[in-house]
Amino acid sequence: MKNLSRRLNPLMRTIVVLLFFASAAHAQTDPLPSWNDGPAKKAIVDFVQTTTTQGSPKFVPAPERVATFDQDGTLWVEQPAYSQLMYCLDRVPAVVKAKPELAKVEPFKTVLSGNREAIAKLSMQDLLKIAAATLSGMSVDDFATETKKWIESAKDRRWNRLYTELTYLPMQEVLKYLRANGYRTYIVTGGGQDFVRQYAEAVYGIPPEQVVGTAGETKFGYDKSGKPFLTKEAKLMLNDNDAGKAQGIHLMIGRRPHAAFGNSTGDRQMLEYTGAGDGARLMMLVMHDDAAREYAYGPAQGLPASKVGTFTQQLYDEAMKNGWTVISMKKDWNEIFAFE
Amino acid sequence: MKNLSRRLNPLMRTIVVLLFFASAAHAQTDPLPSWNDGPAKKAIVDFVQTTTTQGSPKFVPAPERVATFDQDGTLWVEQPAYSQLMYCLDRVPAVVKAKPELAKVEPFKTVLSGNREAIAKLSMQDLLKIAAATLSGMSVDDFATETKKWIESAKDRRWNRLYTELTYLPMQEVLKYLRANGYRTYIVTGGGQDFVRQYAEAVYGIPPEQVVGTAGETKFGYDKSGKPFLTKEAKLMLNDNDAGKAQGIHLMIGRRPHAAFGNSTGDRQMLEYTGAGDGARLMMLVMHDDAAREYAYGPAQGLPASKVGTFTQQLYDEAMKNGWTVISMKKDWNEIFAFE
Repeated sequence: MKNLSRRLNPLMRTIVVLLFFASAAHAQTDPLPSWNDGPAKKAIVDFVQTTTTQGSPKFVPAPERVATFDQDGTLWVEQPAYSQLMYCLDRVPAVVKAKPELAKVEPFKTVLSGNREAIAKLSMQDLLKIAAATLSGMSVDDFATETKKWIESAKDRRWNRLYTELTYLPMQEVLKYLRANGYRTYIVTGGGQDFVRQYAEAVYGIPPEQVVGTAGETKFGYDKSGKPFLTKEAKLMLNDNDAGKAQGIHLMIGRRPHAAFGNSTGDRQMLEYTGAGDGARLMMLVMHDDAAREYAYGPAQGLPASKVGTFTQQLYDEAMKNGWTVISMKKDWNEIFAFE
Repeated sequence: MKNLSRRLNPLMRTIVVLLFFASAAHAQTDPLPSWNDGPAKKAIVDFVQTTTTQGSPKFVPAPERVATFDQDGTLWVEQPAYSQLMYCLDRVPAVVKAKPELAKVEPFKTVLSGNREAIAKLSMQDLLKIAAATLSGMSVDDFATETKKWIESAKDRRWNRLYTELTYLPMQEVLKYLRANGYRTYIVTGGGQDFVRQYAEAVYGIPPEQVVGTAGETKFGYDKSGKPFLTKEAKLMLNDNDAGKAQGIHLMIGRRPHAAFGNSTGDRQMLEYTGAGDGARLMMLVMHDDAAREYAYGPAQGLPASKVGTFTQQLYDEAMKNGWTVISMKKDWNEIFAFE
């Protein structure tokens, strides 16, 4: 070392010294600054260290490092309604403009009335009609254009901010921390795959090919100039909820995740499937128990389960039994949004 | 430059000089040594240079660099039958052992007879029955184990070599050349996605999540110990042939490829879909016209189209019309297999 040091000229010596301090500083930086010390933060850090330290008995080779994340309620706010539902409602006027006969037909009539109370009471069957009318029948390229336009301007009422700003800073840190340690991060969402793919890269750094979601069939055809294009059809191919999340992971990734994050009963099978693998596996559920800073729903402190993002007492009990880690937004996160 | 040079000590100067020569040598290495000079090789090299040189008007940003490859007949030998069909036939005895009543039922009876002529005459309907019996009903994990075992031992009769050795060296070079230039290479195969994923990483360096193929539905369930698992069902989800290749690309990748390689009518829509994008796009078809070193079938020199890998005169004409490049195995490849 001494000999080498003498052979380096002063400039080189300075660079070597700087590099040493830079790497030492890097090692000491907390990768999860928005997380309070506690079992949830410890579970994440322990998992990453155990699976990425060479020689560790639970070392996971780089190609196997896959982590999956539910989106609504896990990576961003899902109350009072999924953002994709808001998109569908916002698209109704354009759909009616193209097909004026729908203006007098329910549920489109109610949506056009703008009566929020009446809209909130629409049945699941009504919502499916709206989804079919607003999410199919157009080319995948036109749908991408419309979605992008909407996501760049649509705002949540409570915060008066773009939906894309309402992502959880602590979860963004987990995404980056895992990626910095060789994990490929995937979104596995009950939301529409074509919808989420339009913004996942900008919002989470997750490219389209790493977004698994509910997907409909497409139809291949040619336009007048002979150019081929795909049309979105109203026929469901993959319902990426519940068991569909495990099926979607097998179909699209073909590997069992080593870490999975969710927040509702729709994520149960994804966490079970992840936990059924050998070696180190990390299963976590975000529990919404902070009405002041976000929302509180589900089993925390006896709160009733919400219509969306249902986190039942049964799911909580299964988490405890299986050794999954429940994240308390109130206790585990010292910040929730980057804009705060 | 002179000042900097003076400030470096002799050791550093030597390193700089070595680095210079190393990079010059690298630049001069032919990335496609098994390709003869000609329009096919030139098309590939031009495409890579045009799309990866900063400042080029047709530069493609790294995340958009996607190249898709058909497998059978494009990356490896598909004659006299697809390897997956051989797998299905080889699995029949095990299936009959589990369900002895099938021994007296056609088409299983014929397969068990070992009469090659009779087996070759089985109808498409018979083959689908065999496929359903051998490719579904088991867990995805058991199927993976069986497939791996088979692919490590099953041999092609003509060369008496493992199927996995019968990959085309020139195409392996293209895969590596594209990857070395930031392209992610995908297999988009009419073969079974679960089947090809078991060996694509070892054989082509293509990981499971980059294999798109024909896929059936899976069923989620629990074993006696409560551990979840997926069972392969006999219900088709994606027929990854013809238009299905464009649909599969949209479903699994969510980006339009910049380069696509095929060899039959089943690849037509994939090439059309690729070519419909803006900027530089590379569409290529492997033409089997070398009976001495491999096989000759399709439109080359008036050869009749084969039952498998159908390369019709119509496809050839479309290629010429659209500016796709047809690769002549005979003229463009100076070597076909690595073992030669």
